[in-house]
Amino acid sequence: MKKTTIIKLGGAEGVDFSAICQDVTTLLEAGQRLVLVHGGSAEATALGESTGHPPRFVTSPSGFTSRYTDHQTLEVFAMAVNGKINTLLVEQLQQLGVNALGLSGLDGQLLVAKRKSAIRIVENGKRKILRDDYTGKIEQVNTELLTTLLKGGYTPVVAPMAVSHKGEALNVDADRAAATIAASLHADILLLLTAVPGLLRDFPDESSLITHLSRSQLEDAFQIAQGRMKKKVLGAQEALEGGAGKVIIADGRVEKPISNALAGHGTVIA
Amino acid sequence: MKKTTIIKLGGAEGVDFSAICQDVTTLLEAGQRLVLVHGGSAEATALGESTGHPPRFVTSPSGFTSRYTDHQTLEVFAMAVNGKINTLLVEQLQQLGVNALGLSGLDGQLLVAKRKSAIRIVENGKRKILRDDYTGKIEQVNTELLTTLLKGGYTPVVAPMAVSHKGEALNVDADRAAATIAASLHADILLLLTAVPGLLRDFPDESSLITHLSRSQLEDAFQIAQGRMKKKVLGAQEALEGGAGKVIIADGRVEKPISNALAGHGTVIA
Repeated sequence: MKKTTIIKLGGAEGVDFSAICQDVTTLLEAGQRLVLVHGGSAEATALGESTGHPPRFVTSPSGFTSRYTDHQTLEVFAMAVNGKINTLLVEQLQQLGVNALGLSGLDGQLLVAKRKSAIRIVENGKRKILRDDYTGKIEQVNTELLTTLLKGGYTPVVAPMAVSHKGEALNVDADRAAATIAASLHADILLLLTAVPGLLRDFPDESSLITHLSRSQLEDAFQIAQGRMKKKVLGAQEALEGGAGKVIIADGRVEKPISNALAGHGTVIA
Repeated sequence: MKKTTIIKLGGAEGVDFSAICQDVTTLLEAGQRLVLVHGGSAEATALGESTGHPPRFVTSPSGFTSRYTDHQTLEVFAMAVNGKINTLLVEQLQQLGVNALGLSGLDGQLLVAKRKSAIRIVENGKRKILRDDYTGKIEQVNTELLTTLLKGGYTPVVAPMAVSHKGEALNVDADRAAATIAASLHADILLLLTAVPGLLRDFPDESSLITHLSRSQLEDAFQIAQGRMKKKVLGAQEALEGGAGKVIIADGRVEKPISNALAGHGTVIA
């Protein structure tokens, strides 16, 4: 049976997409089945600013940061993430001879999510409720579609959007999208590439890298994690609980980010 | 055997996407297999203008108008067409219970095209050559991918981009993309919806509608056709020569645009 690896490419600065794409060819040649999931937060922010719709980031009472997504923001997000990042990633891979196929979670109901139309936030120390938000929590993955594509020799490249039970387009978190896909395919490895070497005990001190974590230590890890790293730890937990074999959080800024991570560099969670 | 219909949705003003999507559900319920192809020229122009990259339209010596597409224009095109139009169309269809799946021609090498890196144009009466153009002529359709998706119960929604033989992303004409797909699938019908009632003998006089054309009359029709209609006539010819059963050029502005066209309104070419 072929090994299945789900790779989340960070949208953060310093993560080198072309190095990742190069490395993808090595894994495919070694007979692996790959699904790539990407972000695009920075691009969406830039496009929003240049078209007069700067983003608004909000923080939940439990400390998660997310993009407030009204319908106009969702359209900007779709353009930047589905339109630009996804297309250019597919192009890069095609140029390397990889038969990549871009999808968002709306396509063929790849990712079905429950819409959170009202979200609780904390702003200037006060709790508020925001409505008209088009974000969601993924509840279902169309595993059959992914399996069909993988069997056909395609490498799926997934943009972090989902479809609600009513058919609405939603913005979803890319780390957790990758995690639910890893769980649904019972992937051998979920690899979360980011702009740090892994989970750091004392962020941003890179020498404080935690190299191994057991599942039982994830609760503690969640307390240590700062900012967006919290979602990666949550994603790791969801992936492992759902049936993925192993999660690696690793550096996306190095020369061969995937090979490097699979060689054991980063935070390995199993 | 199920009937296969390829529908090109015009990007032109007045064409009602929601009426088309409603009508799509009727055809699917009647057991048809459908592939939708859309444009997005107007959106790409609007996005280019709002981000400081207004489009440049050029005319070939034989009278065809096209968008000059350097790499920046291509990225704008990808955002507007792959990102916005395609995603919102898939969303509309999902809301109606249609399991739509958006693709561009890059995805899985759906549409492989020969890049025209240098194009001849006429400007102020003078002939010029423009380089660095990312447009192409489709040479190959991944019929197997479309067939797999159709068999799986998905309705493919195709954005007019293609991949070159070197893996580059290219902007292609949506009418001719629909025509090559119709040919490759030996579709029963290619339906080109537009903002006029069909091919007009005296454009823009709508009472001069040509209701029927035989294949042998296509050369004459090409002379009559004005502006973008020339590409539709060329597309009709390519589709019929490639194995499609019938082409209908019809009005996309009416209440039930697809049913109306299939009932015989428009220009029927066979």
